[in-house]
Amino acid sequence: MEKYDIVIIGAGPVGLTLSTCLARWGYRIKHIDNRAEPTATGRADGIQPRSLDLLRNMGLKRKIMAHEPAKVYEVAFWDPNTKGIHRTGTWASCPKFIDARYPFTTLLHQGLIERVFIEDIEKHGTKIQRPWTITGFKNDGKDPSYPVEVSLAHVDGTLQETVRAKYLFSGEGARSFVRDQLGVRIIHKDPIAHVWGVMDGVVRTNFPDIKMKCTIHSDAGSIMVIPRENNMVRLYIQIASSTDPDWNPRKTATVEEVQEHAKMILKPYEISWDRVEWFSVYPIGQGIAERYTLDERVFMGGDACHTHSPKAGQGMNTAFLDAVNLAWKIHHVESGFASRSLLSTYEPERKLIAETLLDFDARYAKLFSSRIPSAGEVAGAASNAPEENEFVKTFKASCEFTSGYGVAYSPNTINWGPEHPAQSPLFLSYQHGTQLRTGRILTPATVTRVVDANVVHLEQQIPMNGSYRMYVFAGVPSKTATAVKDLATYMANPSSFYSAFAHMKSAEDRYHDSDNPHSDFLSVCTIFNAPRPDIHIADMLPPMFARYRDHVYADDVWDLRVPDAKAAAHKKMGLDEQEGGIVVVRPDGYVGCVVKLVEGKGTCEALDKYFSVLTGRSLGAERAAL
Amino acid sequence: MEKYDIVIIGAGPVGLTLSTCLARWGYRIKHIDNRAEPTATGRADGIQPRSLDLLRNMGLKRKIMAHEPAKVYEVAFWDPNTKGIHRTGTWASCPKFIDARYPFTTLLHQGLIERVFIEDIEKHGTKIQRPWTITGFKNDGKDPSYPVEVSLAHVDGTLQETVRAKYLFSGEGARSFVRDQLGVRIIHKDPIAHVWGVMDGVVRTNFPDIKMKCTIHSDAGSIMVIPRENNMVRLYIQIASSTDPDWNPRKTATVEEVQEHAKMILKPYEISWDRVEWFSVYPIGQGIAERYTLDERVFMGGDACHTHSPKAGQGMNTAFLDAVNLAWKIHHVESGFASRSLLSTYEPERKLIAETLLDFDARYAKLFSSRIPSAGEVAGAASNAPEENEFVKTFKASCEFTSGYGVAYSPNTINWGPEHPAQSPLFLSYQHGTQLRTGRILTPATVTRVVDANVVHLEQQIPMNGSYRMYVFAGVPSKTATAVKDLATYMANPSSFYSAFAHMKSAEDRYHDSDNPHSDFLSVCTIFNAPRPDIHIADMLPPMFARYRDHVYADDVWDLRVPDAKAAAHKKMGLDEQEGGIVVVRPDGYVGCVVKLVEGKGTCEALDKYFSVLTGRSLGAERAAL
Repeated sequence: MEKYDIVIIGAGPVGLTLSTCLARWGYRIKHIDNRAEPTATGRADGIQPRSLDLLRNMGLKRKIMAHEPAKVYEVAFWDPNTKGIHRTGTWASCPKFIDARYPFTTLLHQGLIERVFIEDIEKHGTKIQRPWTITGFKNDGKDPSYPVEVSLAHVDGTLQETVRAKYLFSGEGARSFVRDQLGVRIIHKDPIAHVWGVMDGVVRTNFPDIKMKCTIHSDAGSIMVIPRENNMVRLYIQIASSTDPDWNPRKTATVEEVQEHAKMILKPYEISWDRVEWFSVYPIGQGIAERYTLDERVFMGGDACHTHSPKAGQGMNTAFLDAVNLAWKIHHVESGFASRSLLSTYEPERKLIAETLLDFDARYAKLFSSRIPSAGEVAGAASNAPEENEFVKTFKASCEFTSGYGVAYSPNTINWGPEHPAQSPLFLSYQHGTQLRTGRILTPATVTRVVDANVVHLEQQIPMNGSYRMYVFAGVPSKTATAVKDLATYMANPSSFYSAFAHMKSAEDRYHDSDNPHSDFLSVCTIFNAPRPDIHIADMLPPMFARYRDHVYADDVWDLRVPDAKAAAHKKMGLDEQEGGIVVVRPDGYVGCVVKLVEGKGTCEALDKYFSVLTGRSLGAERAAL
Repeated sequence: MEKYDIVIIGAGPVGLTLSTCLARWGYRIKHIDNRAEPTATGRADGIQPRSLDLLRNMGLKRKIMAHEPAKVYEVAFWDPNTKGIHRTGTWASCPKFIDARYPFTTLLHQGLIERVFIEDIEKHGTKIQRPWTITGFKNDGKDPSYPVEVSLAHVDGTLQETVRAKYLFSGEGARSFVRDQLGVRIIHKDPIAHVWGVMDGVVRTNFPDIKMKCTIHSDAGSIMVIPRENNMVRLYIQIASSTDPDWNPRKTATVEEVQEHAKMILKPYEISWDRVEWFSVYPIGQGIAERYTLDERVFMGGDACHTHSPKAGQGMNTAFLDAVNLAWKIHHVESGFASRSLLSTYEPERKLIAETLLDFDARYAKLFSSRIPSAGEVAGAASNAPEENEFVKTFKASCEFTSGYGVAYSPNTINWGPEHPAQSPLFLSYQHGTQLRTGRILTPATVTRVVDANVVHLEQQIPMNGSYRMYVFAGVPSKTATAVKDLATYMANPSSFYSAFAHMKSAEDRYHDSDNPHSDFLSVCTIFNAPRPDIHIADMLPPMFARYRDHVYADDVWDLRVPDAKAAAHKKMGLDEQEGGIVVVRPDGYVGCVVKLVEGKGTCEALDKYFSVLTGRSLGAERAAL
């Protein structure tokens, strides 16, 4: 019987993201999908700002952008008036108060997005097997190393295959065989269901905002406009709601009916279609799976765990982040970098996000569907300050969440908080000495790389390599020299968080490995508050940190958000520009903990304590022997 | 006999760029190269900032960047001292006083660069015929439409072909059959010749600036270090000079000899090679062709016209710009947009640049080769203010030129100047009312596109489509409404510069053509000094300009270079922020003329006069009939 590290069911966004990460990190994967071909067109289309960061970190952004996606920077609100509709205002899709590297939504059909992942997966030796489906599975533990047996079959029933695996993952979408077999219930947060029509096509129109994302309320109904690649436009239109007196979840509509409806809503503007590329009508109910895993061997993610309206463009983005959250945890457990209990953080972390999403979606969908009376409209069209009806208020309040930057994981073993088992006065919390919230992604910052003077984005410098990221903000070199030296000395202790996970094959040639010369557990960046030409790596850093020569940076780039700072990156992290500090970032980009950089053993000790909890090992215990 | 619009000899940078432009614009091309395969690796490698703008404008930048080239932001200067060598300072490769969108040099071997062009050429239906060579040609005028006969042969002599063409172009490199046949002499500006060794490879070293561009002078000789893609490093080393007492232009060196020499020069640092990807030794003499064309049918460009040392990384960049300069002129003549006299501007425009380059190169190469006495060195290593020896002074003074932004074409029929035949008090010159110098590229500016609120780079919005670019900087809408309306009214005159070149097939469906809805002669952009949400295209622009709906912009993005400006793009062009002005940019991106935007007929009249000279037509003559 063939053995795999993981069997992944479904090659939609969640399955592909998981497969991409694990394939790169060298895992043996069986990945199947029950469709004969990848998505051709249509389906999900919105990549949120935070997801674009993630795709860049995975090295996939350039290939996405090569398709020339549409970019949504602003949303326009249209309301009914006596002539038909009028714009009441616009609002940034990702407003300036959010410090986003890419403050826009990227719009591209799911097929093109999937293709970028599929190419990468194949490059790393995994081929998606189609059209195959799962017919059964059990975590019978008969083979302790590969406890899960999975039965697979060709969809036409001609071929069967049974394999053993360490993990099984369901990225099957809303109709999940695995979820049904596990008996995991879907909780319906909002009893209201909707039937949606969605149409991608090329149009001619004198509607001025056809290249903007628009939410249009008219006396004839509501519509959402989404600009797309290749001069296309997507229209979302609500066809039925369970609040309708004649509610029928099987209600449908033809292309022509939806077009006629759109024409009515858009009056006094005109619209016609050159071609329709994709059209679909589908019922959507809100739901969330009660559990994402029962045994931490069989996991689920993406639409198998949460369904909601397509309105806020969150489905695919939530799927990406489900997958990345799980990928590194499996990787750390299987690499011996963590105890199995790390896997128990997947469900609570990701379910909280799904719950927040469903709460928002319920409010948003309801407000979107409610008629806005023409009588209520105000004259102030074209103002940039939209009339503050409930819909607009909800939209604005939710920008941070929908952009992906509002996603925050609660304190737990990974995300340090005052209740964390690791205690030291050197841990900095949000209330005390740093702007960085644990559980949130690292604030973007532009710095200069010392070795080649390239101006780079610090948050992107460590690629998605599955390693923790240790950012040594070293403040002013002359002030922190002893603290940095002491930190290196204590980290050299064989049982420290740094040394305990060193590469086994120490004889291997790692001269050209700039991210993981020492260990796959951790990558190290050092950032000085000094002009680049004044930083001499060999003189100013202990060999341990100097070894990460390609990851030494000068915090010498002016930033509009902190115009008075001398060291903008330090400042944006909320660290002292002179004294610096240590920021530990999880492999998926979220801040794990922030520690003061001090002379003596304290800093290393705090980090040892933090990593002891994460890894289940007693790290730094031999320190006394030094 | 087969007929072609152009026969292009040589598929190096100049031939490929010309072929790419003309293939896209629909010309029938015979393109041959005498090598059996495209460049595999090595050769030229530096794309200067201005060239990167150009490649982006051609839609090729993303494919270049997909190869992860090295980027040079700074240059380090190393001089001899008692211990061996020490860094005396660093200097920006493209300093901040240059307003460059990409202030770095992009380093990638020529083979990868060529491949990007070749793919594009093939996509547009031209296939490079290899290994074929030219055996003869004559402009015999036997066929007045295709006056040039060209004889071609397979390099092994087995196949011959004779074709007729409108034009013949030699991009053959330094040894040009066409140039020899024409009897065009090479003028040697500087009698000194050099033999160079160049080596691309992967190294191990403790030399701290191995990822920077470095010029290293030591008592053991001089070397230039260039970082490259794929963790490679290029070293340039001078092997012989005609100033040597034992000068032998055939002097050579082995890989090992060059490596030993490099080791000596780099002391006290150590260096060794993991692998050498490419190594070449070649003699370089400085030369410039007396003529680039004799009859404006047979043209030459690139190394066929100018050779010099590889030091400043200018060869390929000059070739790109030779080709683009010629491409649009051929296109305009063949499209009936210009009289043949436009072609007579190619040689003087490009030869002036080559002469400037050779002057710089002679000084630079000489200074690079001269020993800097150890005794002369100062203690101030690691300062950002390099010791101002002659070499450093020359380097700094030349940054603008070497970045490509110092390239300026002199006034002629295309580049308006006080002596231009078109005269009107509304023409703005550098001395009078604008920062924009004719003959220089348009200053970069960031603006917001009105239709989709995308933040975009104005200078890149019109792609390399072969059209003039008319930028209507419309100032404050309420102040310029009449002037803009009047301009449109006069431009509607059938004999205006705008209407005279309208598409012939007016019935053709051009709804989705956003750059050339009206004509291939001209593309139009309008830029308002107003916040984006306040700009209503249909209400604020006459239909003629509103038709270019995808090219209406809000000048509402703050710019660090003009922090107090309300309308940064207007300000950076040196135009009045209230009143605006018209900027006409040539199809290759250089400013042609700048005209005041005024009420009445004056603005259109000035533009009609300017374009009358360019096109050889009497434009706007019927204005009186209005």
